[in-house]
Amino acid sequence: MLQLLSEHTCFGGVQRFYQHDAAAIGLPMRFSVYLPPGFASQPLPQDGLPVVFYLAGLTCTEETFMIKAGAQRVAAQEGVILVAPDTSPRGAGVPGETDSWDFGVGAGFYVDAVQEPWARHYRMYSYILELRELVLREFGGDAAPCGIFGHSMGGHGALTIALRHPGLFRSVSAFAPIAAPSRCPWGEKAFGGYLGPDRAAWRAHDATELVADGPVRFPGGILVDQGLADKFLAEQLNPEAFEAACQAAGQPLTLRRHAGYDHGYYFISTFMEDHLRFHAGQLRQPG
Amino acid sequence: MLQLLSEHTCFGGVQRFYQHDAAAIGLPMRFSVYLPPGFASQPLPQDGLPVVFYLAGLTCTEETFMIKAGAQRVAAQEGVILVAPDTSPRGAGVPGETDSWDFGVGAGFYVDAVQEPWARHYRMYSYILELRELVLREFGGDAAPCGIFGHSMGGHGALTIALRHPGLFRSVSAFAPIAAPSRCPWGEKAFGGYLGPDRAAWRAHDATELVADGPVRFPGGILVDQGLADKFLAEQLNPEAFEAACQAAGQPLTLRRHAGYDHGYYFISTFMEDHLRFHAGQLRQPG
Repeated sequence: MLQLLSEHTCFGGVQRFYQHDAAAIGLPMRFSVYLPPGFASQPLPQDGLPVVFYLAGLTCTEETFMIKAGAQRVAAQEGVILVAPDTSPRGAGVPGETDSWDFGVGAGFYVDAVQEPWARHYRMYSYILELRELVLREFGGDAAPCGIFGHSMGGHGALTIALRHPGLFRSVSAFAPIAAPSRCPWGEKAFGGYLGPDRAAWRAHDATELVADGPVRFPGGILVDQGLADKFLAEQLNPEAFEAACQAAGQPLTLRRHAGYDHGYYFISTFMEDHLRFHAGQLRQPG
Repeated sequence: MLQLLSEHTCFGGVQRFYQHDAAAIGLPMRFSVYLPPGFASQPLPQDGLPVVFYLAGLTCTEETFMIKAGAQRVAAQEGVILVAPDTSPRGAGVPGETDSWDFGVGAGFYVDAVQEPWARHYRMYSYILELRELVLREFGGDAAPCGIFGHSMGGHGALTIALRHPGLFRSVSAFAPIAAPSRCPWGEKAFGGYLGPDRAAWRAHDATELVADGPVRFPGGILVDQGLADKFLAEQLNPEAFEAACQAAGQPLTLRRHAGYDHGYYFISTFMEDHLRFHAGQLRQPG
């Protein structure tokens, strides 16, 4: 049951915020949708507009991307639906879930926890797949092509979910992703806490390992932007590991390094147009 | 003494946040500046880039516009400096100053209070003029042309300050301004509280009255955008009073009414590009 919380006309389309009972999470979850001007005129489900999912980073909510990224202008031009989920369960009531800014609330890390006391609600990996189905049913039509992108923790989420489900997401990109979470402090804390100490279980949620393990899943390429003044670059992000894995595996990658840019939305908004045109171009090709 | 609090590369330029001791306020004030890519290459003060000031609405800070409006992209293209001040003194310690969201902190209303206990610090009208001089000295050069615009309370501020100082601001526009504050609840509360019960003193801070009193000060026109789904339109904004005053006085006005749009930044961001191109066009003309 989809509950419309608010809506706002924006660039000729409509910006909406919803709440629904998320089966994967076992709690209500919020997400945002931008429907471009062409949306209402789509007569049939099978003609659904392309849908691009954006996964946000640590501490963000379903609102962050829609407020800060400046994405609606380009989505309106391209005729693309945008969807942004929250970054964790809210109100799970797990002891200590708000103690850290990089674990628990606002930091679901797009995995399904198996460790207690997180396993019941902290299932953001399954939730993103559930949300994709919900959005296609409500807005897209079964045949609507989907892309996915994200920032930092959400860049990790976008890359890993796309690499595991190239049949569900036909285009993928990221801003400053946590590209090799098994070998950085953020990832070690999150994977250790949610998945447990067995590092073999971490491979399925590490973009660099997935590329190394895989066949080539995105022959049209993956786009990654990274700011060189990003204070998390040296310790947390490891784009060079992802780049090396892509080169070794033959996975085409456009990794752009931008002097002067940091980790925030002033960086993301600068290159948002490039990412949306990249997705729109890939999603318009025959599937 | 200008203290740089943070800076972020954005659309090839730089987004900065500053704090300084504001003489008009008697307290430290914060403001934000966006310097477009061409800024550093300006060799001489007299060749300063155009500067456009944005005055925000109730509850906002110096950060709101830079985060939410999507303005930097167009400012970068046009080679325009953007400046956004805070909306009131902070930390004045006036009893009751945080009791209301539409009076006191976050609601300076761009006037100089004469009523106690507000008169010492609540002087946002003089502060905007002080900030203009500071910005020209630091970033613009003495001859840099200035424009001013704003939203809601800040639309009121932009219109009134520009109408009182057409020699200082050569272009003016507004989003959903409080266009006749003397005759709406927000304005009556603010002007009564800051300026006192004598309504004759309110005229100098009411855009509709200023146009009626004036000569024509902006022969190149004023641009105002208003959403028709704006929940404050009927009671607070009075664009039709401003429109009638402009017509009677011969002041050219482009008042655009937009079906479906509300009072927030999803509306403002949609029409931001039009406003910045309007200002850039006016400011590039020989002064």
